[in-house]
Amino acid sequence: MSTEYVAPRILVINPNSSETVTRVMDGALDMLRLSVAYRIESISLPDAPAGIETQADIETVVPMIAREIQTNAADAYVLACFSDPGLALAREVSDKPVVGIAESAYWMATGLGHKFGIISILDKSIPRHLRYVRSLGLESRLANDRAINSGVAGLADHGVVERIVEVGRQLRDLDGANVLILGCAGMGHFRKEIEAQLGIPVVDPAQAAVSRTIGLLTLGYMPQ
Amino acid sequence: MSTEYVAPRILVINPNSSETVTRVMDGALDMLRLSVAYRIESISLPDAPAGIETQADIETVVPMIAREIQTNAADAYVLACFSDPGLALAREVSDKPVVGIAESAYWMATGLGHKFGIISILDKSIPRHLRYVRSLGLESRLANDRAINSGVAGLADHGVVERIVEVGRQLRDLDGANVLILGCAGMGHFRKEIEAQLGIPVVDPAQAAVSRTIGLLTLGYMPQ
Amino acid sequence: MSTEYVAPRILVINPNSSETVTRVMDGALDMLRLSVAYRIESISLPDAPAGIETQADIETVVPMIAREIQTNAADAYVLACFSDPGLALAREVSDKPVVGIAESAYWMATGLGHKFGIISILDKSIPRHLRYVRSLGLESRLANDRAINSGVAGLADHGVVERIVEVGRQLRDLDGANVLILGCAGMGHFRKEIEAQLGIPVVDPAQAAVSRTIGLLTLGYMPQ
Amino acid sequence: MSTEYVAPRILVINPNSSETVTRVMDGALDMLRLSVAYRIESISLPDAPAGIETQADIETVVPMIAREIQTNAADAYVLACFSDPGLALAREVSDKPVVGIAESAYWMATGLGHKFGIISILDKSIPRHLRYVRSLGLESRLANDRAINSGVAGLADHGVVERIVEVGRQLRDLDGANVLILGCAGMGHFRKEIEAQLGIPVVDPAQAAVSRTIGLLTLGYMPQ
Amino acid sequence: MSTEYVAPRILVINPNSSETVTRVMDGALDMLRLSVAYRIESISLPDAPAGIETQADIETVVPMIAREIQTNAADAYVLACFSDPGLALAREVSDKPVVGIAESAYWMATGLGHKFGIISILDKSIPRHLRYVRSLGLESRLANDRAINSGVAGLADHGVVERIVEVGRQLRDLDGANVLILGCAGMGHFRKEIEAQLGIPVVDPAQAAVSRTIGLLTLGYMPQ
Amino acid sequence: MSTEYVAPRILVINPNSSETVTRVMDGALDMLRLSVAYRIESISLPDAPAGIETQADIETVVPMIAREIQTNAADAYVLACFSDPGLALAREVSDKPVVGIAESAYWMATGLGHKFGIISILDKSIPRHLRYVRSLGLESRLANDRAINSGVAGLADHGVVERIVEVGRQLRDLDGANVLILGCAGMGHFRKEIEAQLGIPVVDPAQAAVSRTIGLLTLGYMPQ
Repeated sequence: MSTEYVAPRILVINPNSSETVTRVMDGALDMLRLSVAYRIESISLPDAPAGIETQADIETVVPMIAREIQTNAADAYVLACFSDPGLALAREVSDKPVVGIAESAYWMATGLGHKFGIISILDKSIPRHLRYVRSLGLESRLANDRAINSGVAGLADHGVVERIVEVGRQLRDLDGANVLILGCAGMGHFRKEIEAQLGIPVVDPAQAAVSRTIGLLTLGYMPQ
Repeated sequence: MSTEYVAPRILVINPNSSETVTRVMDGALDMLRLSVAYRIESISLPDAPAGIETQADIETVVPMIAREIQTNAADAYVLACFSDPGLALAREVSDKPVVGIAESAYWMATGLGHKFGIISILDKSIPRHLRYVRSLGLESRLANDRAINSGVAGLADHGVVERIVEVGRQLRDLDGANVLILGCAGMGHFRKEIEAQLGIPVVDPAQAAVSRTIGLLTLGYMPQ
Repeated sequence: MSTEYVAPRILVINPNSSETVTRVMDGALDMLRLSVAYRIESISLPDAPAGIETQADIETVVPMIAREIQTNAADAYVLACFSDPGLALAREVSDKPVVGIAESAYWMATGLGHKFGIISILDKSIPRHLRYVRSLGLESRLANDRAINSGVAGLADHGVVERIVEVGRQLRDLDGANVLILGCAGMGHFRKEIEAQLGIPVVDPAQAAVSRTIGLLTLGYMPQ
Repeated sequence: MSTEYVAPRILVINPNSSETVTRVMDGALDMLRLSVAYRIESISLPDAPAGIETQADIETVVPMIAREIQTNAADAYVLACFSDPGLALAREVSDKPVVGIAESAYWMATGLGHKFGIISILDKSIPRHLRYVRSLGLESRLANDRAINSGVAGLADHGVVERIVEVGRQLRDLDGANVLILGCAGMGHFRKEIEAQLGIPVVDPAQAAVSRTIGLLTLGYMPQ
Repeated sequence: MSTEYVAPRILVINPNSSETVTRVMDGALDMLRLSVAYRIESISLPDAPAGIETQADIETVVPMIAREIQTNAADAYVLACFSDPGLALAREVSDKPVVGIAESAYWMATGLGHKFGIISILDKSIPRHLRYVRSLGLESRLANDRAINSGVAGLADHGVVERIVEVGRQLRDLDGANVLILGCAGMGHFRKEIEAQLGIPVVDPAQAAVSRTIGLLTLGYMPQ
Repeated sequence: MSTEYVAPRILVINPNSSETVTRVMDGALDMLRLSVAYRIESISLPDAPAGIETQADIETVVPMIAREIQTNAADAYVLACFSDPGLALAREVSDKPVVGIAESAYWMATGLGHKFGIISILDKSIPRHLRYVRSLGLESRLANDRAINSGVAGLADHGVVERIVEVGRQLRDLDGANVLILGCAGMGHFRKEIEAQLGIPVVDPAQAAVSRTIGLLTLGYMPQ
């Protein structure tokens, strides 16, 4: 009888109920499936709202996420919403690494360029992002945060790329950003196209988070 | 028939179920009842935990607070827990000013001295406080945060004063604080005694928050 | 014989000799006279310049303010010039709270929005404001400071509102401010109109200072 | 004939001539060899000094590193000296990702705890580290930097662990660090032991850098 | 007939009436008289207080300084009190460069080491210094500010050196300063002795200011 | 036999091989030759590249600079390239003060105005400048950095002035700079003309560095 290596399982939780967003996001994770060493699975939360746009949406999904983590055994968890909802609770209830996609995007971006710009979905989330960036001590690396002001619903459509590129150009040319962060989990499949048009790296937070999670698992770290 | 002035009602929500903490905290608000212009009422949340010590406790009370605000009409609300739990949600669901006691304590303290020290209950809340202070952009005013490491349960007992004074002395003498913040809602009745022993101002966050709320109501502001 | 409650007296010192400015400013304080608990009185300094525009004007009024405080007994003093002239001296010569309107405006604004903009009268005061904001450790909350470049003389005229709104719109739309500070004591009567046109809160520093002073008196604090 | 997947090659350059350091460092990278997807190879530079302690040592190895990168084809390069010597040049001469171990350690540490401490070899490198941390905009996350003041020569000996633990305890208890960085490439094999004794995560910069490099390669990013 | 070069005159104003302090301070400026290109003269203000210890002292000398500058023609002025009293006014009334010794000491110190420590005379001036350092944007370079708590009167006596060295040692060993600033104009003659005992550079603010003034005059700059 | 005063020698090393740049730069140092107390000599490095534009150029000249310093005896050295190449090495190999022109320009500019703007030659050096400004802790004083995007070759031509003035106007009017830094050693002869057109002080880094070096020599300081 042999002991077989079992690839650790990383569970990526899209904390809304949109299967489309989950599928699109998961597709962008294929780049990370190159190695057989990790199993990366993405799920939606069927009882969650279709999109996380308000603070009420955030608070609604926080206990759902905690419950999912407590009942769906994995070796690490990724919270795939750019608000990193319930990250503190998830870390408290789990003895496995839990990673937020926003914080991961910030770390990745600061390692890729000297000033990062955030492309937000809605104007109203900008102050929340700014508070988060400040709380991480990264304010001096932020070029600016600009919104495309489209709803989450429209994000899977290709039409959104034009608007993202337009806002990204402002971040690059007016604000001095030389790396961009997509402020939402469901836009990673547009990454290459946006990079091609703007000529600077674009961070998909879900990709950044899963990549970081692999690193944490490999090295045996628990983020806090 | 005359139009009578009706004093605006400020509802102070202690988001735990400890009537003792609420009573003690409310007593410290008497200094603010001098004027007849505002009615200040303090309540507990009967279904909440006895104390807010973990992130799970915080998440448990967030929807309770929102419900209370939506059903208990007042002109302004104060969230009387030093984690400011559910502040963002409360502001979203209410069209009245909602004020957190932690943020209010920080504003008050920065106006009283050049470096403030925080007296926390537990070591494990220090990183959370630090993130909050940073998110407000006030890190350069923070001297240090030190914990007395006593449970919320023991806070109403007088014995806790000695420990607070001991930690406050470290913040003053080792860390250069010239104003202190009590990192909990239930210690305001000790304020004068601590001030007398240490010779520097001590901020009770509940007092600071209600005082600030009166200012906001008087001038017609909505904090965001 | 009964002991009667005597409402504490707050003396608001407009440190110039313009009765018009004092009257206009005092009118904006009516919102704070709701309660009978405090008497709020505004005075000019008859020997002071008509407006405080130069550093020489500031230095001229500093000893006048100190003398006024030493001879005109009150329970607290507000220095109603956006340079907070002589604040350090006033605090040294008085054993009562002395409050500056600029510092109070900054605390109020940081509690109302995530980035504040300053509407200055003159370009040349911008570096002074910036030094002050930095000295308070609040630089990360400042969106920008823009001047209307009109003299103090013209501030009472309604025509100035248009210019303030124009500059306020730049602060909001180009610099990301979501709360504005009027960088002068004599513009509070325009506050509501400016707020209506711009849709974000506007801080009159004199109102903010008196409100803060009431809080300090009520809670027994001495700012330093 | 089939196209076979060829695992990308990551070349870890220890820019001194000590085979012992390279071997020890390489051993600590075994944790990252779990997956077959990447080949991780460590080399020394035979013509380089035995240790990088002075600025002259740094400047001596900079062109050697560039030459190595230009002649030793790989898919990514890691510079395994905590001074990140020649990082800018290496990036200029190569069209492959080049990663420094110091910058990687800082990103990793800021994602693991709220304040990181650096355990330096020598006092004299502390100002250089501080300048680097500041240049990355991470100063607010630095607890302190303390040196064990032992030469690079002695680092492979086990006796050094005691001294590291002693300094790490000061960083944890006096300076508030809750994550530590080993300020040298050759100490990773002690990581687990130090973590066990101190109870907080310890970052080996070489591990952090290779892990980050895998992430960059997988996602197709070029750091700048 | 020849046009003769007339060495520009730098007037160093010790804004107190102590001839002893002026003489001692002036002696420390001899190092700067090496060149015949500038005449450096130091004066006291006979009507000023014997020492500048309180804010009232500061405000008393501000108009005296302005008057001196307006009546005592020179090519540049140095304000030789570590509070830089009346610097803004002096610059407004003069069309010649006016330089403060505190700001000059900060610039000099930040160019000599990575963290500077301030040796203050009195505890109560520390918050004022801190506000000034912050207003200059130099807070991240400040190690700490510690007071010897001796009056200005005793500063000329040699006995004070021991106390300065003791405090300097704390700044160096506990706070990480590698350059020190003497927080007073009358201690420059002890500089070499203090440097010898502590092994790190010590900045006499009067020397730093005159040196900087020479640079400004030579290059034709007006500080603002 | 008499001991004669020998004026200390300051060697200004233009670390490229362009005699034109050296001559132009040296001409701008004539303002500093007023006094007979110091001999200021400028040299090129004949074996160096004609201009320092790439990181490879920087690394090429670093050992050349060190060799020059070790073989060309002087009392102080100035590195006349805005990248301050090899400053750390030069300080290590010399027991005389070594001064970089970039750091000197930053200190000078922060003493002249409240926000400084940098006029860079090329866009690609902006991130490097930003890292440097951050590493000095001066980020809050930086208005912006904008490039004229002309090669070093064209800098001696007068035509470049127009472009510098254009970029300087943007820094002044859009970014709020009230002092400018010329981000290259060979533009000092245009200083007066640029100042005249823009009305704000312009810092030639070579002038700033030599002036600072004179101060360091006079007062006996070694920068580190």
